Amino acid sequence: MRTFDKVHLQNLDKIYRLNLVNSCTGYKSANLLGTCSTDGLLNVAVFSSVTHLGSQPAMLGFILRPTTVPRDTYKNIRETGHFSVNHITDKLIKPAHQSSAKYEAYESEFDKTDMEAVFMDGLPVPFVAASPVKLYCKYLNEYPIKENGTIHIIAAIEKIYVDADLLQPDGWLQLDKGNVVAVNGLDGYAMPKLMDRFAYARPHQEVQSLLNDASQNTTSL
Amino acid sequence: MRTFDKVHLQNLDKIYRLNLVNSCTGYKSANLLGTCSTDGLLNVAVFSSVTHLGSQPAMLGFILRPTTVPRDTYKNIRETGHFSVNHITDKLIKPAHQSSAKYEAYESEFDKTDMEAVFMDGLPVPFVAASPVKLYCKYLNEYPIKENGTIHIIAAIEKIYVDADLLQPDGWLQLDKGNVVAVNGLDGYAMPKLMDRFAYARPHQEVQSLLNDASQNTTSL
Repeated sequence: MRTFDKVHLQNLDKIYRLNLVNSCTGYKSANLLGTCSTDGLLNVAVFSSVTHLGSQPAMLGFILRPTTVPRDTYKNIRETGHFSVNHITDKLIKPAHQSSAKYEAYESEFDKTDMEAVFMDGLPVPFVAASPVKLYCKYLNEYPIKENGTIHIIAAIEKIYVDADLLQPDGWLQLDKGNVVAVNGLDGYAMPKLMDRFAYARPHQEVQSLLNDASQNTTSL
Repeated sequence: MRTFDKVHLQNLDKIYRLNLVNSCTGYKSANLLGTCSTDGLLNVAVFSSVTHLGSQPAMLGFILRPTTVPRDTYKNIRETGHFSVNHITDKLIKPAHQSSAKYEAYESEFDKTDMEAVFMDGLPVPFVAASPVKLYCKYLNEYPIKENGTIHIIAAIEKIYVDADLLQPDGWLQLDKGNVVAVNGLDGYAMPKLMDRFAYARPHQEVQSLLNDASQNTTSL
């Protein structure tokens, strides 16, 4: 194994450290956050830190890095109170990545990339048309992380739109049926395939698969 | 598309809602947190909320759900100040899932599952021997999320151990070279394969792949 200790980490080349530390925590969620400015300009930005916080009430959190993330998303969320979360699929990885370019404040990433915005049920934020899972979220609070100046944003999930293909009878969304990707580090995009799904674990009982349909069970891959 | 609005979400069957909301934010990181009690009992528990917080200094965060997560991990971290983060691979998904069973306080999940603990360089926490990425972390702070009673734990990454196969020349860890998995919802385990890796995005320039080795580029999959 290769080892990087604290002193070594601090003295690494900046890009090397960015790559290493961004990939050392495992795969990340791949989402596009859609917002609308008070002037009506549509914004979309890629985020890999959206995390489940709770189911009742349905809540999520994400991390804003003030120095690296375009601030339009944050500004719009604070001014309008709402945003959308849209899953990135294989066909969206290039435009999603391109949306991280630093466009001028008057330019919309929807116009500059190949992503189509869509409005749903009169809600005041743009969604990504091609995304198989779309969440409508309401800003609730934020916690400044004093250790490094990031901000943990807390939001309520107010509406979930999902392609029927993904939705299983018990409410579970099988993400690979929508070709949803995961992020590896800062800039790697990976396509997950379901291996197995397990029943609630109990002491002294063997782990049981929940997949009855043999065609779904791809542990042999 | 299927739609779940706020009222619908609140009135769903509890298990259905748990499955839906836990899978609607996208893929999650799949990690085992290793701790040691002051009595010397080794603990290991599966977490899917470990998130990158920053590279300089190297920091991560994770969410503790007081009502559902075994409290041993939290108790040990507060008492000893340290824990390990170990990536889950295809071969570890069954024992990792089994570690979420509610064992007695005097039982170690390492003994009860097929996971081998290993100690590295005299550090005071157990690591998971078969894990290709192992982090040694120091508790820094915690932020109670008042909106739902969860706790956001903040930690410094003090040491990184990584299998040489994963480490690329620019510091990036290619996680699929270590068969690292991602979590889908509460109980689904998926195996990601790298599709592409892109250069830093700039306005009005097409997205460029960073993969020179054609054998790595599996976008055609």
